[in-house]
Amino acid sequence: MNEYVTLAHGSGGKMTHMLIKDIFYRYFRNDLLLAGGDSAVFEADKGLMAFTTDSYVISPIFFKGGNIGKIAVCGTVNDLAVSGAKPKYLSCGFIIEEGFPIRDLETIARSMAETAAEAGVCLVTGDTKVVQKGCADRIFINTAGVGVVPDYVTLSANRIKSGDAVILSGTMGDHGTAILLEREGLKVKSSIASDCAPLAGMIESVMSEYADAVHIMRDPTRGGVATALNELIDGTGLCIELKEKFLPVREEVKGVCELLGMDPLYMANEGKVIIIADGACAGEIVDKIKKSPYGREATIIGVVTENYSGRVLLNTIVGGNRVIDVLTGDQLPRIC
Amino acid sequence: MNEYVTLAHGSGGKMTHMLIKDIFYRYFRNDLLLAGGDSAVFEADKGLMAFTTDSYVISPIFFKGGNIGKIAVCGTVNDLAVSGAKPKYLSCGFIIEEGFPIRDLETIARSMAETAAEAGVCLVTGDTKVVQKGCADRIFINTAGVGVVPDYVTLSANRIKSGDAVILSGTMGDHGTAILLEREGLKVKSSIASDCAPLAGMIESVMSEYADAVHIMRDPTRGGVATALNELIDGTGLCIELKEKFLPVREEVKGVCELLGMDPLYMANEGKVIIIADGACAGEIVDKIKKSPYGREATIIGVVTENYSGRVLLNTIVGGNRVIDVLTGDQLPRIC
Repeated sequence: MNEYVTLAHGSGGKMTHMLIKDIFYRYFRNDLLLAGGDSAVFEADKGLMAFTTDSYVISPIFFKGGNIGKIAVCGTVNDLAVSGAKPKYLSCGFIIEEGFPIRDLETIARSMAETAAEAGVCLVTGDTKVVQKGCADRIFINTAGVGVVPDYVTLSANRIKSGDAVILSGTMGDHGTAILLEREGLKVKSSIASDCAPLAGMIESVMSEYADAVHIMRDPTRGGVATALNELIDGTGLCIELKEKFLPVREEVKGVCELLGMDPLYMANEGKVIIIADGACAGEIVDKIKKSPYGREATIIGVVTENYSGRVLLNTIVGGNRVIDVLTGDQLPRIC
Repeated sequence: MNEYVTLAHGSGGKMTHMLIKDIFYRYFRNDLLLAGGDSAVFEADKGLMAFTTDSYVISPIFFKGGNIGKIAVCGTVNDLAVSGAKPKYLSCGFIIEEGFPIRDLETIARSMAETAAEAGVCLVTGDTKVVQKGCADRIFINTAGVGVVPDYVTLSANRIKSGDAVILSGTMGDHGTAILLEREGLKVKSSIASDCAPLAGMIESVMSEYADAVHIMRDPTRGGVATALNELIDGTGLCIELKEKFLPVREEVKGVCELLGMDPLYMANEGKVIIIADGACAGEIVDKIKKSPYGREATIIGVVTENYSGRVLLNTIVGGNRVIDVLTGDQLPRIC
């Protein structure tokens, strides 16, 4: 087999077939994919389904805690999970720069397969395009996902009400900070790794027990917790008040962010979920989340109030209030 | 609004929201998309569903007969349709190079919306990433699609049998030749346009009447009719024999291909379908296809025989037989 991806691998001919068989069939192996049709065909039950997509252009493609393949599976799995869906099937579309090492493609595919297995999803259909050297930056991956929404799910921003608790499943900014460190080649001796993880299992464990108490969920990726909370509260006429002292941030992340003038509230996460839930059940939900390996540092970070309409406020440690707006400008490009 | 796409448009923050509202919501407007959740949630019936994806990296992005947006909708719609599915929902993921003109993005989005409307599908979920200047070639689009497979569909390569007719819905190589002419800037005075078209309606009209007689379908895109036929016949133990004199090729396409040493059998099509059907019904199916604006030149191009196992043969005009293999090497990169 070749050592590098060539334009012929994207031709749709013999070389494309070889690449598909040698790499994608080998790692993604499942009946729907191996049927090899123009589409994957599966049996659906009557009910609600969720459908989502994301493209991944992260740089660098390999980083502490993951790689572009792992994040491409996690991101789409998590988008389905926060919609209350049980993720089932993923598609993946590769856009590869001519000259990309086949060995790296294999590492990425293996990682996708492992993450998909953990999340309980199958990679059932795909596509590979190759562009000339200089026409793409190494590799971009799109995944789309289909999931099944159980009957008991009633998530809606309309269900947010005053007195709800705002739960975050763990520390903020790990992913963004890890990428920043890798990219800038900062010589900081650090153990900061991306939090990149598939949250479907953890979220399902909460939803199967507390579906009624959970009003809405979101994964705080690009734009961070600040942007996600603004999106959730926008148009509800309510206010989210965060307690600065409860915001979970690793000391190392805090240090790097201070050094570089970044705010962890706006840093991307790839393995965290925000849950807005009935205040009365919030403690139990946090305990439930803590049982997952990805939720050990879950905590209540704030409450929903009627104090301001559509705003996110930070009650600071020194006793003031600061309006937390959505991200403006571009804090960090190509973070996912 | 800005005139050009900036990195901030891909940040997930304020500028991303503006781009989504000003362009994508405006043109793609439908309830599922406007719900604005992490996933689009829709009601499914019990039964078979089809799921597929393709990324589009075509160069140039605007060409006679279409643009990258139109082809991104047609390609995925057609992949669903040839699987026997009625296309329903599309996702779209944009990867945009910093500095891309917003006006061009708008033209592309409008074109996607028009084509989706014609095909009866909704663009329900999407994603936008922006990469630095020089890290992508203008714009890449991924679409994934979900469709519903009616009960009466029984497509399978296992159903191909000796005596079946091979139907092609129109002329070969229009798309590939049109792109070649644009790209090479050849000063050929030509009316050749891409055949890029959504075939869902045409295929549904055939399937609703001849579901049992149609054994399998495929759209001959990258790699052309030759590669698609090889994929279909591979592993069946049967042979496809094409009649050279029946192969529909526009005179102009023939001329350009001869000039440049290309073979129309391997040139990409974006608005054609190959149908392998019971020989007894093939004439009626051709008549049915001809009623569609995209199938006026439909014709039977060959038959399935037992003469050679897993081979595609061309019975040439001069009376010989030539083996038609899958595409080797890369006839034309970035054709879709």
